Amino acid sequence: MQLTGKNLIGNKLSGINPQSFKGHGGHSGIAFHEATVGEVDQAVAIAHKAFGSYKNTSGVERAIFLERIAQLIDESKGELVAIAMTESRLPEGRLMGETGRTTGQLKLFASLLREGSWVNAMIDPAIPDRQPLPKPDVRQMQRPLGPVAVFGASNFPFAFSTAGGDTASALAAGCPVVCKAHPGHPATSELVASLIVQAANDTGMPEGVFCHLQGEGYEASVHLVSHPAIKAVGFTGSLGGGRALFNAAAKRNEPIPVYAEMGSVNPVFVLPEILEKEATALGQKLAGSNLMGAGQFCTNPGVIVAVKSKAQEQFTEAFKTALEAASADNMLTDKVFSGYCSNLGKMASLRGVTQLVGNLTAKEGVAAIPHMFQVEASAFINNPDLQEEVFGPSSLHVVADNAAQMKQVSDILHGQLTASVWGTEKDMKGHSELIGTLESKAGRVIFNAPPTGVEVTYAMVHGGPYPATTDSRSTSVGTNAIYRFTRAVCYQGYHQALLPEALQDANPLSITRKVNGQFTDKAL
Amino acid sequence: MQLTGKNLIGNKLSGINPQSFKGHGGHSGIAFHEATVGEVDQAVAIAHKAFGSYKNTSGVERAIFLERIAQLIDESKGELVAIAMTESRLPEGRLMGETGRTTGQLKLFASLLREGSWVNAMIDPAIPDRQPLPKPDVRQMQRPLGPVAVFGASNFPFAFSTAGGDTASALAAGCPVVCKAHPGHPATSELVASLIVQAANDTGMPEGVFCHLQGEGYEASVHLVSHPAIKAVGFTGSLGGGRALFNAAAKRNEPIPVYAEMGSVNPVFVLPEILEKEATALGQKLAGSNLMGAGQFCTNPGVIVAVKSKAQEQFTEAFKTALEAASADNMLTDKVFSGYCSNLGKMASLRGVTQLVGNLTAKEGVAAIPHMFQVEASAFINNPDLQEEVFGPSSLHVVADNAAQMKQVSDILHGQLTASVWGTEKDMKGHSELIGTLESKAGRVIFNAPPTGVEVTYAMVHGGPYPATTDSRSTSVGTNAIYRFTRAVCYQGYHQALLPEALQDANPLSITRKVNGQFTDKAL
Repeated sequence: MQLTGKNLIGNKLSGINPQSFKGHGGHSGIAFHEATVGEVDQAVAIAHKAFGSYKNTSGVERAIFLERIAQLIDESKGELVAIAMTESRLPEGRLMGETGRTTGQLKLFASLLREGSWVNAMIDPAIPDRQPLPKPDVRQMQRPLGPVAVFGASNFPFAFSTAGGDTASALAAGCPVVCKAHPGHPATSELVASLIVQAANDTGMPEGVFCHLQGEGYEASVHLVSHPAIKAVGFTGSLGGGRALFNAAAKRNEPIPVYAEMGSVNPVFVLPEILEKEATALGQKLAGSNLMGAGQFCTNPGVIVAVKSKAQEQFTEAFKTALEAASADNMLTDKVFSGYCSNLGKMASLRGVTQLVGNLTAKEGVAAIPHMFQVEASAFINNPDLQEEVFGPSSLHVVADNAAQMKQVSDILHGQLTASVWGTEKDMKGHSELIGTLESKAGRVIFNAPPTGVEVTYAMVHGGPYPATTDSRSTSVGTNAIYRFTRAVCYQGYHQALLPEALQDANPLSITRKVNGQFTDKAL
Repeated sequence: MQLTGKNLIGNKLSGINPQSFKGHGGHSGIAFHEATVGEVDQAVAIAHKAFGSYKNTSGVERAIFLERIAQLIDESKGELVAIAMTESRLPEGRLMGETGRTTGQLKLFASLLREGSWVNAMIDPAIPDRQPLPKPDVRQMQRPLGPVAVFGASNFPFAFSTAGGDTASALAAGCPVVCKAHPGHPATSELVASLIVQAANDTGMPEGVFCHLQGEGYEASVHLVSHPAIKAVGFTGSLGGGRALFNAAAKRNEPIPVYAEMGSVNPVFVLPEILEKEATALGQKLAGSNLMGAGQFCTNPGVIVAVKSKAQEQFTEAFKTALEAASADNMLTDKVFSGYCSNLGKMASLRGVTQLVGNLTAKEGVAAIPHMFQVEASAFINNPDLQEEVFGPSSLHVVADNAAQMKQVSDILHGQLTASVWGTEKDMKGHSELIGTLESKAGRVIFNAPPTGVEVTYAMVHGGPYPATTDSRSTSVGTNAIYRFTRAVCYQGYHQALLPEALQDANPLSITRKVNGQFTDKAL
């Protein structure tokens, strides 16, 4: 595959901006042209045009498109992973796994489309002789919103970027995508983008169903989310970046859904009886989760809470020992690394915080030295700054005096992607109020497993209350992510032939529907 | 029932503000105390506290609560309608029907709760021996967001007010409600509110599950939607009022869903063949829809589009005749009436507009004289001001040169609650692109029926793209309205006994669930 450093507007390469930036890694000869606001306009215009026909493609047609993207990525994964390694500094095994996850997501959405029931078809047949007025025939199903802006994430060059979850779910829903690549991996993004466009052409999708823009600056991104023809936004990244896009979108005349997944400290509560039984093993296990991928997962456990005890001290010691034994791991970008360093400094300076592991002053290259801090629960409860995410291999251990104070910690937590509880059955029964509170704070509550590792499955929720995301009603992982980009449309009194197939009496797609509120696979 | 003019904060009456306002009608002796920001805080605090236990009530418990509200409204409907007549100037028959609709909504949500499958339970069982990593047990269901702010609407003193759709769906979802009454019918609202609180006490619901605030000013409303413990907002009213609340909520640190249903002109396209066949009857029928309730329905047909022809002229003539024969009907409030008059003036002043019916200068009391305007499609296409809603018995008739220009009219339409098409089967087949465009503009597309009259049913969508609403993914009518106030929570690796009943293996609620993506009623 040939790198060009240009933006992709439909089938055309475009790089009119003399302003450009260079990535780092094995393509350092290439200058990536910042997308201009004019190019953003062109991309959105062709995406808007594509929507006119793309919204009317069948689920099977879109499934074939998604499967073709997966196939092309699979065929090129050696080349893609090689360049992603140089751009992201992530190891080959991890990136190979991530391409598998990415193609797996695409294929999962394809299977959802082939099955077809995801449209939530509902039919309430007419009752012409109802008194005092006839009851009309009313049907509804999910329909695509329109062109979607997707922003690539730094920490998943494949699974949350160009052909990642938001792109897969938007394309599955019937929405064209204008993707803004993360400047941390522009080359990987360009190559993946060219495969998506090739797949669109191979499978007869309209030109403009996918566009790809490069840039380090904010101007084009803000212009993109402000464009009247953009009908939703997907973003994964920092609280600062996500909030800036959310605020820009909030200035639009027409409000649109903005799904920004941002910071989360993914609190972990370790309960007394399990601590007594497995202090050392648990300390090692959670340290492993904290260190994974240089701590650069959205679900990295950043706050760990336990009640003061001998066992808790053993747990802390085991966690500490595991961190001390770990080597420094390269971070994704210089910016991510400098952010890590400055957040460590902030954390160390906060009242009541003790540093147990790490050397704040050691800065070689972009290798993140693991850090570990401790604070008493009373201090944590009174200082919201202690809840700020340190993106990287760092954790804050909160020590409570007793179960009641541990419950208070849960009460003041901000919104989270995940919250975890480790406990025996007795522990769990004795802390049901704590568990109930966590349910109101997080998108996913986990028993006895590390938060890292997000299963791509039907029932997954990767989302949660603010600041974890800007819209807690949604998930970015799992099949329900398709509903980010759809709305229900109601069809009243339609002729059969003009109804979408999903709503026709004969049920030609053989999908599960709700008729008068009851699920059925049958024709009417 | 005894009117007090006070706010209801849990079980306590509160009227500490010396500032008060008087409604009009049969209770003119009563001063209604404006809720202070302190009273708003108290109401939200008790609602937040109530959420702690209310979120854990069973569906059946909440069904009993909703049914009790319906029963109490039904028992008092004579008294309620009598006072609502004096406050809203709406006729007895209409208000009696509206109480039936209100109790019907409450009972529909109760039946949804009793059936139980609405929680969208999904289960992906563990695969402990999966390679390379075990698959965890992942389950999800819908859970309530927290306390909700509901704003009563002027035009439906019952069905979209204190015990209206938003209150019913929020209470059904498990969310306490802080309701701000519409100042157009404070007495009706207070009486209904007292019945809701009585029903909560009768059925063992926590104090604060429903609070009720009065006020004419904006300050308390803005304070309410800005309160950190409020997790969603429901509003039905004007574009100005809805947008002001939306903007206030947009300034929050934590973004929350704001469901503001605002203006809609509910465009109606009348196609050529049906015009040829039924011009006069159609003109009469649509005029009837336009006149209904003094034109004060959200779905009132405000823009009517047809291609120039003899039949179209006949249609226009029949519409005109029906309007001229109609008597002036009282509007809801002085403010609504003065808004109608000033919007008529604006409409008449716009370039290309011809007034066919009405006398702009006639202003007696609050009786709205029907109006009818006409404009050429070319002018309509070029002036977005012509799309502004005139709330009341007024319509703008857009005359297109040909089918292509009629399609252009559909292309430039703003978002709508409804869009309607009248046509024969041949008409419909010949205008499939027009119909496809309308689908992207409206929450509901209607064939051959007036837009007024919104069926409360499973498949109804009462919503649509901006400016019809601020969140097109939602409906305010029908059972799906419950999802305004919920989000999915994911439970990973839970012990059976700690899982919500809806997610337990044994399926003790006998609901329909998705297991590995497949619908089933069975236990695991």
